[in-house]
Amino acid sequence: MTNSTNQQILLKSRPVGEPKESDFALVETPIPEPGEGEVLNRTIYLSLDPYMRGRMSDHESYAAPVELGSVMVGGTVSQVMKSNHPQFSTGDFVLSYDGWQAYGVSKGETLRSVDPNQAPISYALSVTGMPGMTAYFALLDIGQPKSGETVVVSAATGAVGSVVGQIAKIKGCRAVGIVGSDAKSDYAVKELGFDACINRKTQELSSALKAACPNGIDVYFDNTAGPILEVVLQQLNLGARIPLVGLISEYNAESPPLGPNLMPLLVKRALIKGFLVGDYRHREPEFLNDVSQWLREGKLKYKEDVVEGLENAPQAFIGLLQGKNFGKLIVKVSDDPTKI
Amino acid sequence: MTNSTNQQILLKSRPVGEPKESDFALVETPIPEPGEGEVLNRTIYLSLDPYMRGRMSDHESYAAPVELGSVMVGGTVSQVMKSNHPQFSTGDFVLSYDGWQAYGVSKGETLRSVDPNQAPISYALSVTGMPGMTAYFALLDIGQPKSGETVVVSAATGAVGSVVGQIAKIKGCRAVGIVGSDAKSDYAVKELGFDACINRKTQELSSALKAACPNGIDVYFDNTAGPILEVVLQQLNLGARIPLVGLISEYNAESPPLGPNLMPLLVKRALIKGFLVGDYRHREPEFLNDVSQWLREGKLKYKEDVVEGLENAPQAFIGLLQGKNFGKLIVKVSDDPTKI
Repeated sequence: MTNSTNQQILLKSRPVGEPKESDFALVETPIPEPGEGEVLNRTIYLSLDPYMRGRMSDHESYAAPVELGSVMVGGTVSQVMKSNHPQFSTGDFVLSYDGWQAYGVSKGETLRSVDPNQAPISYALSVTGMPGMTAYFALLDIGQPKSGETVVVSAATGAVGSVVGQIAKIKGCRAVGIVGSDAKSDYAVKELGFDACINRKTQELSSALKAACPNGIDVYFDNTAGPILEVVLQQLNLGARIPLVGLISEYNAESPPLGPNLMPLLVKRALIKGFLVGDYRHREPEFLNDVSQWLREGKLKYKEDVVEGLENAPQAFIGLLQGKNFGKLIVKVSDDPTKI
Repeated sequence: MTNSTNQQILLKSRPVGEPKESDFALVETPIPEPGEGEVLNRTIYLSLDPYMRGRMSDHESYAAPVELGSVMVGGTVSQVMKSNHPQFSTGDFVLSYDGWQAYGVSKGETLRSVDPNQAPISYALSVTGMPGMTAYFALLDIGQPKSGETVVVSAATGAVGSVVGQIAKIKGCRAVGIVGSDAKSDYAVKELGFDACINRKTQELSSALKAACPNGIDVYFDNTAGPILEVVLQQLNLGARIPLVGLISEYNAESPPLGPNLMPLLVKRALIKGFLVGDYRHREPEFLNDVSQWLREGKLKYKEDVVEGLENAPQAFIGLLQGKNFGKLIVKVSDDPTKI
């Protein structure tokens, strides 16, 4: 990458099923100029998250799709290069939403400062950012875990799931993860402190869950929907709560697959409730307060899966939907000056 | 029926799919004698309810199945014939759970007195009983309807649905029913005061719902699950609530059918929660207080579908699962002395 041109990844075509690299296009364009009240950012880290698959489709959803030929959207941790906004100066680190590009211009009021002395700046995309906040509010507000209860989470070593399990432990619960490899399973138990973790690719899920949850399931934090949800529903305790946070298992489906039979909800008087983190922006301070403290106390560990180079974002994103990442997936788009 | 023998309907075989008359057996047996603390009741009215289909199967459920060769279970309004319990005297009317038989013996502490001066005694099986209480708590506790919102209910002229729609109106909501005949649809609108009612057998549900719910759906009171739920999910408002109260559409299925795709719950941050009225016994007084007042004020109308003769219970029950009843289905097993 030179310093005089911008690199951008555009949505070239709407994927049918799994996205392919050819659905994206890498282009070089001039670095934009910030207008009145705007800031020019250099992207250091780009967040890759499953929700982006939804933005590539034009099905109705909770957010507008990315237009064909436009830059793919996404959260970024960036450094301010030029500022026409009084709150930001050249050299500041900010959380922005500049998308899949090396440089972006944003309105100053949409940026949040990132303090490099508090935590690695990339954490603003993960544990102290959107995925962490998703884990925190969906688990505590909808899941309402009580000490001694059993919390199960799918995609358990992912950006959201890993935080869910650790908060469950902090709240005195039994934390059980579901993942797709032995390495992830080991990591969940040995590093993150889960009580048990199931490799759904090698273990029969129903019996493995029964063994891992001898007292049944009180909270299921659902990142995936699909067959995992169906099995979990059979092992719910009375009054169980299911925050429905993601449906990774079906993001690549061309038409929505059927869901599980809902009789267990009736039998167990259980609850499923959809969650979107955007609804909780006004409560960000409580989240940041707790999570910062847990990070300081060493109660919250965090793993990042860092891919180097914007040009590798499409491939990394395709792998994310297949569960190939291990930890929070981010793309390092340019040098992180706090690490030099 | 003579006065010296009891008539009982037994579960003869577990139905495969729809129950058949041959799954039941009518037998004559001696009238039983009440033991210590027990009461002998003569059944006047027997309640027939969809949940009974579940008791005929030995699939896991929230209640034990009826044993083969045992009397079918069910709520009854009865008159005390002989009492060994200090709280009850011969001639009293009681709400009991004597099942599909002409005479039953019950422990005194399981009975509730029914006051014939308050309302027709059969109402203890419906509007002031279990179905009314189901409508009341599932709608108000889970549905939480707010004035100006739209409440949709399936099986809308049934024992539960008819009360749901009328309480929705009392709470200032738009009430929209879904039924299976024009006669029921007319009745819901003209007699019960629903704002609109859809005949799902003659109208295309999705467009009819859109027309009937121009502001979307805030509460869906689900008595049926199945295809209706699937259509409703597409028209939910943000933060919609769905009390899941019955799955009539699948009670005859041999294996549980798949459910709807759950993406709309996420998109709309909506909630589905299972409900069983048994959890609310301790709150019966609030229910009775409100419902009695609404009955006195004429705000709550109620329709019964009375079938004469215990021997006709099996056929009536089979029809109930097909939606053939019109109003709360009860069997008149013997004379109602309050109506002579």
